[in-house]
Amino acid sequence: MDMTELARRIMAQDRRALARAITLVESSRADHRAQTTALIEILRETSDSQALRVGLSGTPGVGKSTFIESFGLMLLREGLRVAVLAVDPSSARSGGSILGDKTRMEHLSREPNAFIRPSPAQSHLGGVARRTREAVALCEAAGFDVVLIETVGVGQSETVVAEMSDLFVLLLAPAGGDELQGVKRGIMEMADLILVNKADGDLKAAAQRTCADYAGALRLLRKRPQDPEGFPKAMTVSALQVEGLETAWSEMRALTRWRRETGHFASRRAAQAEYWFGQEVRQGLLAQLDQPEVRALMQDMGREVAQGRVTPTAAALEILEKLRANR
Amino acid sequence: MDMTELARRIMAQDRRALARAITLVESSRADHRAQTTALIEILRETSDSQALRVGLSGTPGVGKSTFIESFGLMLLREGLRVAVLAVDPSSARSGGSILGDKTRMEHLSREPNAFIRPSPAQSHLGGVARRTREAVALCEAAGFDVVLIETVGVGQSETVVAEMSDLFVLLLAPAGGDELQGVKRGIMEMADLILVNKADGDLKAAAQRTCADYAGALRLLRKRPQDPEGFPKAMTVSALQVEGLETAWSEMRALTRWRRETGHFASRRAAQAEYWFGQEVRQGLLAQLDQPEVRALMQDMGREVAQGRVTPTAAALEILEKLRANR
Repeated sequence: MDMTELARRIMAQDRRALARAITLVESSRADHRAQTTALIEILRETSDSQALRVGLSGTPGVGKSTFIESFGLMLLREGLRVAVLAVDPSSARSGGSILGDKTRMEHLSREPNAFIRPSPAQSHLGGVARRTREAVALCEAAGFDVVLIETVGVGQSETVVAEMSDLFVLLLAPAGGDELQGVKRGIMEMADLILVNKADGDLKAAAQRTCADYAGALRLLRKRPQDPEGFPKAMTVSALQVEGLETAWSEMRALTRWRRETGHFASRRAAQAEYWFGQEVRQGLLAQLDQPEVRALMQDMGREVAQGRVTPTAAALEILEKLRANR
Repeated sequence: MDMTELARRIMAQDRRALARAITLVESSRADHRAQTTALIEILRETSDSQALRVGLSGTPGVGKSTFIESFGLMLLREGLRVAVLAVDPSSARSGGSILGDKTRMEHLSREPNAFIRPSPAQSHLGGVARRTREAVALCEAAGFDVVLIETVGVGQSETVVAEMSDLFVLLLAPAGGDELQGVKRGIMEMADLILVNKADGDLKAAAQRTCADYAGALRLLRKRPQDPEGFPKAMTVSALQVEGLETAWSEMRALTRWRRETGHFASRRAAQAEYWFGQEVRQGLLAQLDQPEVRALMQDMGREVAQGRVTPTAAALEILEKLRANR
């Protein structure tokens, strides 16, 4: 496949070309990896379209699919093109959620200006991260205005998503009592906007209480330089009743505008690129250990260590020496 | 320095030789590292003395120093030799606690059969881990019966200590209310024994309540194969009044005896050795990035990436290629 031609088609908003390129990005075959790197490089040089990357985290049960469906359709009504990507390290175990993702956003998935792509089936979070970042770059080049990157928030996946987003939105459900829903402080500190969903019917009052609790908790956090007055912010929405979504979007736009004007938008992207560069170097070094012959060597040596015939340190030095000699 | 001679002196229980060897172990100079590896290897081959390694975690305020002082003196009265080592990743920042450690265990530190060594000043937890493991090996070879490895429980330091201990003891203070003290589930799951300290005077009742709460929480945890009936266990102690310490020690001995008889003691040590082997290989691979010229290269390339002149992936590939060519 000619990468220059594929790049041209992606920039011409050819959806099939985009889907094909993402499949390429998701492949772990060495030749596909090389093609991907070339493709991304061509797009970096020739495309100057930029999407707003919105990270969205929500555990199962908060109504994330309904939110994405309603929010996505609202963005389409505003004349925007929307892509939805997912970071879900668990999908490797469950065999992927390829059908799941599309059926749970039934209307959005049929829209010509929307593009939904489930998480690649990949066990390693580092691999998922790179593939998703590359898919984001492809969607940007394909002229999408908003790229939603969603995660269920298992383990480190929230950090991964926050590190590739311009805005990070935390979606929550109304809490039963007046306690905060065990949202970890680290996650709270990453959020630019907290949306308490299901503010409708019987749950409306509970949603408002939960929202007030989180607004209070956000005020207790240290002020971040990248926030204008009033941010991070907590709001209620109802994805089901399509309420509060336009207000939420207008807050996102206001925050983005401020960050663009103050340079925080660009400096965040720069810092993220540097972060991923460092991560990829580290992952690349550790990837040596995934080679079958190195795995076998590690296993044999591990047995010697376990039996006390060599110290962990001496055994590690021997392996490192062999890896060095191998190049 | 002749390592064979140093090894001989350590095995002859020469305290100055032990202190000197630990200083060598803590050095990051390449020649010292090589000597250390040789020394540990000699001791592995020639010494067959084995200490009971007891990991001890307690946040500031639970009375950890008083506990170690009282517990250590009790072990000495039983005719045992006791070494105390520390894993404290924060000591690098505070400039080490070398004086602190000795003065806060005033009586124990003056005893000829006790050896107290503070945490090496080292910013990197991986480095602290290796040095502490090596210091443990030296103390074992020097004929200590019990090696206490203490940590304040910052970040991952509890895992580090648990992975080099035969027993892991969690020291807690009486809680104000009836709530558990925010001890993370992961830490609870590592504990073999929970000791609620300060069970004296006004706090005695609170300590007993806290102990009952933890005993209940421990019963809810999944049964581990390495535990006989009744373990992990929660007990109250008073380090100040020297109460409950003999009972705690007798529980530790009972647990150790059971684990020795069932093979769990040996298999835990084997698994730990394999774990540290894997960790050292990974750290060794990543250590390439600490070389000054690689650091400089990473910084230059990082700037290019931040300015968008090259993608993180392409930049990482270039660095990895250079590292490969360098060997």
